[in-house]
Amino acid sequence: MKLATLNDGTRDGQLAVVARDLKTVHIADGIAPTLQAALDDWTFIAPQLDALSRELNAGRARRPFDFDPARCMAPLPRAFQWADGSAYVNHVELVRRARGAEMPASFREEPLMYQGGSDDFLGPCDDIVLAHEDWGIDFEAEVAVIADDVAMGASPDDALRAVRLLVLANDVSLRNLIPAELAKGFGFLQSKPATAFSPVAVTPDELGEAWRDGKVHLPLRSTWNGRLVGRPDAGTDMVFNFAQLIAHLCTTRNVRAGSIVGSGTVSNKDASKGYSCIAEQRCLETIETGEAVTAYMRFGDTIRIEMLDGAGKSVFGAIEQVVKRLER
Amino acid sequence: MKLATLNDGTRDGQLAVVARDLKTVHIADGIAPTLQAALDDWTFIAPQLDALSRELNAGRARRPFDFDPARCMAPLPRAFQWADGSAYVNHVELVRRARGAEMPASFREEPLMYQGGSDDFLGPCDDIVLAHEDWGIDFEAEVAVIADDVAMGASPDDALRAVRLLVLANDVSLRNLIPAELAKGFGFLQSKPATAFSPVAVTPDELGEAWRDGKVHLPLRSTWNGRLVGRPDAGTDMVFNFAQLIAHLCTTRNVRAGSIVGSGTVSNKDASKGYSCIAEQRCLETIETGEAVTAYMRFGDTIRIEMLDGAGKSVFGAIEQVVKRLER
Repeated sequence: MKLATLNDGTRDGQLAVVARDLKTVHIADGIAPTLQAALDDWTFIAPQLDALSRELNAGRARRPFDFDPARCMAPLPRAFQWADGSAYVNHVELVRRARGAEMPASFREEPLMYQGGSDDFLGPCDDIVLAHEDWGIDFEAEVAVIADDVAMGASPDDALRAVRLLVLANDVSLRNLIPAELAKGFGFLQSKPATAFSPVAVTPDELGEAWRDGKVHLPLRSTWNGRLVGRPDAGTDMVFNFAQLIAHLCTTRNVRAGSIVGSGTVSNKDASKGYSCIAEQRCLETIETGEAVTAYMRFGDTIRIEMLDGAGKSVFGAIEQVVKRLER
Repeated sequence: MKLATLNDGTRDGQLAVVARDLKTVHIADGIAPTLQAALDDWTFIAPQLDALSRELNAGRARRPFDFDPARCMAPLPRAFQWADGSAYVNHVELVRRARGAEMPASFREEPLMYQGGSDDFLGPCDDIVLAHEDWGIDFEAEVAVIADDVAMGASPDDALRAVRLLVLANDVSLRNLIPAELAKGFGFLQSKPATAFSPVAVTPDELGEAWRDGKVHLPLRSTWNGRLVGRPDAGTDMVFNFAQLIAHLCTTRNVRAGSIVGSGTVSNKDASKGYSCIAEQRCLETIETGEAVTAYMRFGDTIRIEMLDGAGKSVFGAIEQVVKRLER
């Protein structure tokens, strides 16, 4: 099934079930008011949502209405955890190579992962509002999973069974703030502002054969200012799958329902697939010519992130954002 | 007023108002079911909680019962944000000096801050359950604030006005995992397991004159295995106050209601005040004799963290935890 959170003026929004073709939607409030409430009691709530989903897809639901992604908040407008891995090691390797640094071999054995802010997520069509262009505004197209409870020390197999939903994410990054933040060793903090998510979260079964080995085997399309700049396959070159990412996160802690775990920027070794963040393109330019020529995003720039299935249909709906200057 | 969250088997617990003397408690469920619900609508809810608090303190509340910290969850059993500063720069300086490293001057100009897991907090009397003693289990006694909404780019003055509640925290740390985590540059992740909080969260006015300049001017007492090992004053040597810490956090993002911002390990330059984490004692030993002799915590160890007011009364109740081995 496909789920969305409609903006009703509350902090957590209104849970709704979306038709597979993303054309219609149906409020789920007789079942659960919010997505977090559904995740808190998934085994009880999910079958009820699924029944509504089947009715909606069959054209038999009682009060469907047109689905408008612009009315969506993030599926979880705020979450209790947002941990983002760097599973596409090619991306990490490129960044390092561009600055003449070797990548430690350990980066292929253990995932890199950071903990980000989860109190203020952006909806799929919300503006990216920031104070300064010269912070080096970049998009990062990612896939992420929303997990159920996972106990401390769980195996990757246990973790895989706890994957409840998948989403797309735009892990907006402020490239020019990253070096100083990472130099402190305490993580990205100011260099990772609010993250945006796709209009729709889907259960793994919605992906059919494209969900296997804990990976999503479909291309992730990034369109920057109307130009398709990336379509790497999310199932290719993913060195750590979602099972491994979740298991890594719960090595020393329990992971609780509603935790969102990201893949990191999707990146293929095959450079003809383009890029899912500008930084990567700049790294390629630096490696090839000694100089990065592609500039970061400007106020007014647009970014669209979407994933199409084998039949060319949008799975999650599109993240479609405009970068805007903070008005004080 | 003083607020607590009682363990009723739900994920977010039951909000309750606690008497100033911590002897009695009263369920707040006619007002708000959970502390997060109260924080989501503070201007409407807080006066109602305050009225109940006044009745309880006057002995006129209808259904008070004995307050038992062991029945408490963390005031926010899970939160949408947990960002922990390092405001007591003395602590950072000692850690660096012990390993022969200079502290960058910038550490006195801009706070260090990390983003930690907030999906699974420990109650004040919950065991610290971990798989391995040799991870280097340490306590960290801290003060933290719970904020209301703060807009991106807010000034420290704006941020100060958004402080709704104060709590104590035990920011449990796994010292032997920290070097490898920090070397990756992505933050503490596995080296900061679940954090514990005091039984009670208090509004700033409960501290009277002890809350001024965005700091809590009272000693924080840490008692390890029954021995008082630290009583540094939380208002002394705090280089960044809570206003500055919150403003730092919201430089590139909005901070939303219920975000918890920590002070970092409370530490005074006056070493006779003892320590709020074992690592600091080990640093002092290393600086003095070249060798750290105090071992980290063992399974079975206890830690008590508490703050007394000028009259010797406990302000927040005590964090009292036992370290236990994870049973698989």
